[in-house]
Amino acid sequence: MSIRIAVDAMGGDYAPVETIKGAIEAAREYKVKLQLVGQVDKIENELAKYNTKDLDIIITRADEVIEMNEAPGSAIRRKKNSSIVVAVDSVAKGESQAIVAAGSTGAAMAASLFGLGRLPGIDRPAIAVVLPTMKKYVVMLDAGANATCEPNMLHQFAIMGSIFSNCILGVKNPRVGILNIGGESGKGNTLVQNAYKLLAQSQDHINFIGNVEGRELFMGYSDVVVCDGFVGNVTLKVTEGVANMIFKMLKDELTKSVWVKLGAFIAKSALMRLKKKSNYEEYGGALLLGIKGVCVIAHGGSKAYAIKNAIRVAKESIERDINGKISEMYELSRIL
Amino acid sequence: MSIRIAVDAMGGDYAPVETIKGAIEAAREYKVKLQLVGQVDKIENELAKYNTKDLDIIITRADEVIEMNEAPGSAIRRKKNSSIVVAVDSVAKGESQAIVAAGSTGAAMAASLFGLGRLPGIDRPAIAVVLPTMKKYVVMLDAGANATCEPNMLHQFAIMGSIFSNCILGVKNPRVGILNIGGESGKGNTLVQNAYKLLAQSQDHINFIGNVEGRELFMGYSDVVVCDGFVGNVTLKVTEGVANMIFKMLKDELTKSVWVKLGAFIAKSALMRLKKKSNYEEYGGALLLGIKGVCVIAHGGSKAYAIKNAIRVAKESIERDINGKISEMYELSRIL
Repeated sequence: MSIRIAVDAMGGDYAPVETIKGAIEAAREYKVKLQLVGQVDKIENELAKYNTKDLDIIITRADEVIEMNEAPGSAIRRKKNSSIVVAVDSVAKGESQAIVAAGSTGAAMAASLFGLGRLPGIDRPAIAVVLPTMKKYVVMLDAGANATCEPNMLHQFAIMGSIFSNCILGVKNPRVGILNIGGESGKGNTLVQNAYKLLAQSQDHINFIGNVEGRELFMGYSDVVVCDGFVGNVTLKVTEGVANMIFKMLKDELTKSVWVKLGAFIAKSALMRLKKKSNYEEYGGALLLGIKGVCVIAHGGSKAYAIKNAIRVAKESIERDINGKISEMYELSRIL
Repeated sequence: MSIRIAVDAMGGDYAPVETIKGAIEAAREYKVKLQLVGQVDKIENELAKYNTKDLDIIITRADEVIEMNEAPGSAIRRKKNSSIVVAVDSVAKGESQAIVAAGSTGAAMAASLFGLGRLPGIDRPAIAVVLPTMKKYVVMLDAGANATCEPNMLHQFAIMGSIFSNCILGVKNPRVGILNIGGESGKGNTLVQNAYKLLAQSQDHINFIGNVEGRELFMGYSDVVVCDGFVGNVTLKVTEGVANMIFKMLKDELTKSVWVKLGAFIAKSALMRLKKKSNYEEYGGALLLGIKGVCVIAHGGSKAYAIKNAIRVAKESIERDINGKISEMYELSRIL
């Protein structure tokens, strides 16, 4: 039986055009079935552009859309017919096995939490993102679901992040660090000091390597880095902000004279590869971990390529039973 | 009367060679007198390399050195003859007017705090750093002095950051933002929510523009950004980490083939300018704000150029009476 993915066809800056384009590419490449949720006429208009005869696509009506600036909690209660709420419902009813959404992160999280519930043993879901490093990738969580955290939540993030790193990125025995402002165990605020003690006691099920500083995050020393959602969200956006600034400066500098332009033209392939390496579209969006279900939150600015990758991550999360493994490891951590 | 700067000649990865080279360049270019503090024979060896006849340089003996990995509080109590403690003492005694140090940030902060004391109305000193943006620069504080903060401290940081931006970077009526994970006033953790309320009530003496997200930090929307020292330190190091990673990737990509190498060679001037723009050495180190005195903490990896700029910032901080202005604005904020 192949997997069906519910795609919020209305969410994101380039919806429904790029969302549906990416979904169709994913359906073809990864052999998944689709459930496109949103305004039927708009979805049908987009589908008409493609030959979809060989694909299994159902359309589910949802006339409302939650905008990026709406308060998530009240928006999902008020807009029961919004594409994200209906997409989550379709997973709750078993019509699809996972949700992919590029709209409001808060709304996707709130809808998933209320519509599907939490995994046993997990206090709060977390958003896991994949960042590039000089070597491979690093999974960072929480990237913004919880502005305030308790030490035991960071322990749960460490479990979930380890499973993600292993299942999705194929890392054996992933190295887990705490994002901190110094290397020694006593460094940082009370949260990370206490989380350090918890993780140091959990070496039997977590490969804890200690604190990781902001600079080291990009050196590839660790496979998973845990932090509260405030620090994680700032880190994620600072990473994006610095990369955008450098590429903008690079572009400005490389178009300043004909001579320099010529050099840039010759080196174009290298510059394109660099851009690709540091591009969030490669990593397939953020995975909401800790809920009874799979929800991949793609970047608001996702184009087809990012949506396609987000669907790949959703499919792999189901096939590799990421939630089953999180529950198993949680049970193990309780027994030990 | 010209200003004398006490330079910790032993602190930093390239001390005393680069430290003394930079100090001599600064003495000549900015017409400052020097007090070089550290191991006399090493300092004299370095000085012998230059013609310093026209410069006013005194050497002050300090045989101990505080290493980067020592706990700052106990290190400054134990090593009374360390270069940083003696440098601070020399300012306390009035021999010099400011300290420039590239060694342990924690030791420089602890020594300054205990040796010179706090400005009236300032609960805790903060480290202010200057970051590049797509437009001008932004001053961020606290960059690591206080892992945990109270809302009123962020208010004090806003006052100190505004004065810094105005005095050192020449910004009129600097726009102040809170580093946060969303734009609206209710976003973030309790600290930033309450700091938002405080700053919103302080519009008569602070040009508060609201929350600034990690991505916006580098767009030049604000001149000053305040945050606790944990978030600030992570932000500073993530900024450095991402920039290092991209330049490393760029270098790797641009040396992959002869053809690409040729392009990079032609575009070299542009790439060099880019590197310079995003280089911390340009901004002259971090200023420790809130103490009764001036202490500029240069990056541990500072070469002569960075030390020279740090001395410039120290000189300007004294000439423009940054501490007098902080005290005035604090008084104003109390009266209003």
